[in-house]
Amino acid sequence: MTEFLQVITSDGLVERLASFPRLPPEVVSLSSALHRIPPEGITSPEDLPERPRSTVDGYAVQAEDTFGASDSIPALLNVVGAVAMGSLADLLVGSGQAAYIPTGGFLPSGTDAVVMVEYTNRIDETGIEVTRPVTVRSNVLSQGEDVKSGELIIPAGEPLRPQDLGVLAGLGVATVCVYRQAKVGVISTGDEVVPIDCKPKPGQIRDANGYSISALVRAAGAIPIQFEIVPDDAGKLHSTLADALRESDVVAISGGSSVGMRDLIVDVVEAFPGAEVLAHGVAIRPGKPTLLARHAGKAIFGLPGHPVSALIVAMVFLAPFLRYIQGGNLEKGPLGSRTQATLATSLHSIIGMEDFVRVRLERAADGGYVARPVFGKSSMLSTMARANGIIIVPARAEGIVQGAAVDVIRI
Amino acid sequence: MTEFLQVITSDGLVERLASFPRLPPEVVSLSSALHRIPPEGITSPEDLPERPRSTVDGYAVQAEDTFGASDSIPALLNVVGAVAMGSLADLLVGSGQAAYIPTGGFLPSGTDAVVMVEYTNRIDETGIEVTRPVTVRSNVLSQGEDVKSGELIIPAGEPLRPQDLGVLAGLGVATVCVYRQAKVGVISTGDEVVPIDCKPKPGQIRDANGYSISALVRAAGAIPIQFEIVPDDAGKLHSTLADALRESDVVAISGGSSVGMRDLIVDVVEAFPGAEVLAHGVAIRPGKPTLLARHAGKAIFGLPGHPVSALIVAMVFLAPFLRYIQGGNLEKGPLGSRTQATLATSLHSIIGMEDFVRVRLERAADGGYVARPVFGKSSMLSTMARANGIIIVPARAEGIVQGAAVDVIRI
Repeated sequence: MTEFLQVITSDGLVERLASFPRLPPEVVSLSSALHRIPPEGITSPEDLPERPRSTVDGYAVQAEDTFGASDSIPALLNVVGAVAMGSLADLLVGSGQAAYIPTGGFLPSGTDAVVMVEYTNRIDETGIEVTRPVTVRSNVLSQGEDVKSGELIIPAGEPLRPQDLGVLAGLGVATVCVYRQAKVGVISTGDEVVPIDCKPKPGQIRDANGYSISALVRAAGAIPIQFEIVPDDAGKLHSTLADALRESDVVAISGGSSVGMRDLIVDVVEAFPGAEVLAHGVAIRPGKPTLLARHAGKAIFGLPGHPVSALIVAMVFLAPFLRYIQGGNLEKGPLGSRTQATLATSLHSIIGMEDFVRVRLERAADGGYVARPVFGKSSMLSTMARANGIIIVPARAEGIVQGAAVDVIRI
Repeated sequence: MTEFLQVITSDGLVERLASFPRLPPEVVSLSSALHRIPPEGITSPEDLPERPRSTVDGYAVQAEDTFGASDSIPALLNVVGAVAMGSLADLLVGSGQAAYIPTGGFLPSGTDAVVMVEYTNRIDETGIEVTRPVTVRSNVLSQGEDVKSGELIIPAGEPLRPQDLGVLAGLGVATVCVYRQAKVGVISTGDEVVPIDCKPKPGQIRDANGYSISALVRAAGAIPIQFEIVPDDAGKLHSTLADALRESDVVAISGGSSVGMRDLIVDVVEAFPGAEVLAHGVAIRPGKPTLLARHAGKAIFGLPGHPVSALIVAMVFLAPFLRYIQGGNLEKGPLGSRTQATLATSLHSIIGMEDFVRVRLERAADGGYVARPVFGKSSMLSTMARANGIIIVPARAEGIVQGAAVDVIRI
């Protein structure tokens, strides 16, 4: 049995992942920008609004004309016109005058405030009573009050949300500069692995990893490219890896449930001129045989062959790495949200190994959450389907006792 | 000013939304199934594993032969072969014999347990010492122990995750039946609205809604179809709405910041034979003029024209409705996760109106969260970009006092 030369910690692996640069940015249209991350903050090219607008339905007036108005002593104003949406009213509103204005309408010349329609009474064809006073700029959005030209509207490094795209559209920013999406070559290896639509012969298993890893890549906002299954053959692995390195930014090879295959992947990776093995062996459970290498600036992940281990390692390192090179932060662990829960049964762990434990998160009677470790041998595929959370047991811990508060990452 | 005939509560609107049936299901390949929801639970077509497999690297043995083995008195076994991955070993292992087996290998005939390689010593060409006893099925996954044929593996009504797709792939389930994705026609209306790549003339504004609503639809897992901007013209609105109803499952029309436009949308919708207005006016802020109608079984949402109001109403009702018709549950409010926070400043509210208040969620010194209401007039587009959460102030409340614990929905 081959031992790993140097087993590193998960934090050590994250440090090596951080040595890769982010992907270069590209310019995309707003319709393609959802969830993409801009490398630089985006500033407004203009004032919003470009001139004062009404925030209510009402009458544009000179505020002074309404001072002291009340139900008993209303101000009387003469309506000289109406502001239409979509065109600047060719109106001049003087003292003692008013113009009807809809929400969003631009204030006509001469006016400096808007009286809400609720505080007016129509008295005849052209006359209204105003029953409440307004001050200058009441119910008005002043020029640049929403956004000033040159103001930072979208911070760097945050995924663009629907509301951000709305603001950008409103300001006429039709294209944005965002980090490129990662293309990820996904390769399953092993003599025993067959396509999922084949009936496995005795001793064969279907390619679960190709599908679970590709889906995880997609869920991380990247683009999976699924390659054909590669048998335990150095030449075939070399040519598929060469194709994958050419077509993608990152390569994820799963395989090596047997020691021989593990060695084969390392040998093939190392045979690429200039390739550098950054890690081979990580003190985590599952996932100890994890490999990280670099060739021509591209990351190559060697994931375990077992579907449960492969997916957990991909959740813990590959998905955060994809978020990082696409502009986000780099933090170990599945990308899901975190929830505090009470541990339902004690967990035992080995000192020196960091454990990623599958749990089922359930609502407790008190409204909180209980995390129940998923029953079954760790190699059971069904444990992944039953789990909806991961607890990280630190390497220095011998376990976590029943009833302890734990941080559960939703998966 | 036109008053709404009957203003309903948000719960009343949700009840009307629940009267729509879900979309019909369709069969898709596993590669297209991520985040889609199956209407029925999925059961396994076969046992996994199909025959006993080893969960470790080691030696397949007859457990009986190891009883009493220890470091001082090891059991001596004769190695008669090795199990290769990908083929069923043509091996018969008898009493006093062993066969090398890799993790995942199928147990050869005659064996019923596996000894981990760590607890063996090679003594010569064919002999090993076993230093720990194993019992029957030790380090073995029995036939059907992971998944039994006919067992429920994926529950109905939950979005498919990468791990679910991995399990399905492993079982040879190459296609799944899932609810169809909703196609959503997105229509912006208003004489004043111009495409985002046009420089607005005085009095015009750019089409923020087309982009923010389309992106929200996409974030909800549905497919937006963005139509051309429609001016305040009944004939043009009618023909665009007819196109949208033909091409999509749901239509979202934003517009009607002016009272005239609000009336126009209702009139055009009602002119479709058999169209039914289910709600016109909802007791929420922002979003009171919200319209819901049905034509030929399809939902038509009339959203406010103002970009902030339109997006909040779409977050609160349209996105949950899309989740629902695509197979999820129907619950009012943005789809994001919920976080408990302390309210930074008191919020004032009107009794009888349910408020959706934009807040900025910030980490507090104690590790908890503070929710800070976003400063600025409610109609300011920039408030949407600055907010990352929504607090719902119930209709019966006059407000929420500073320091209260609030539930923030992340947006």
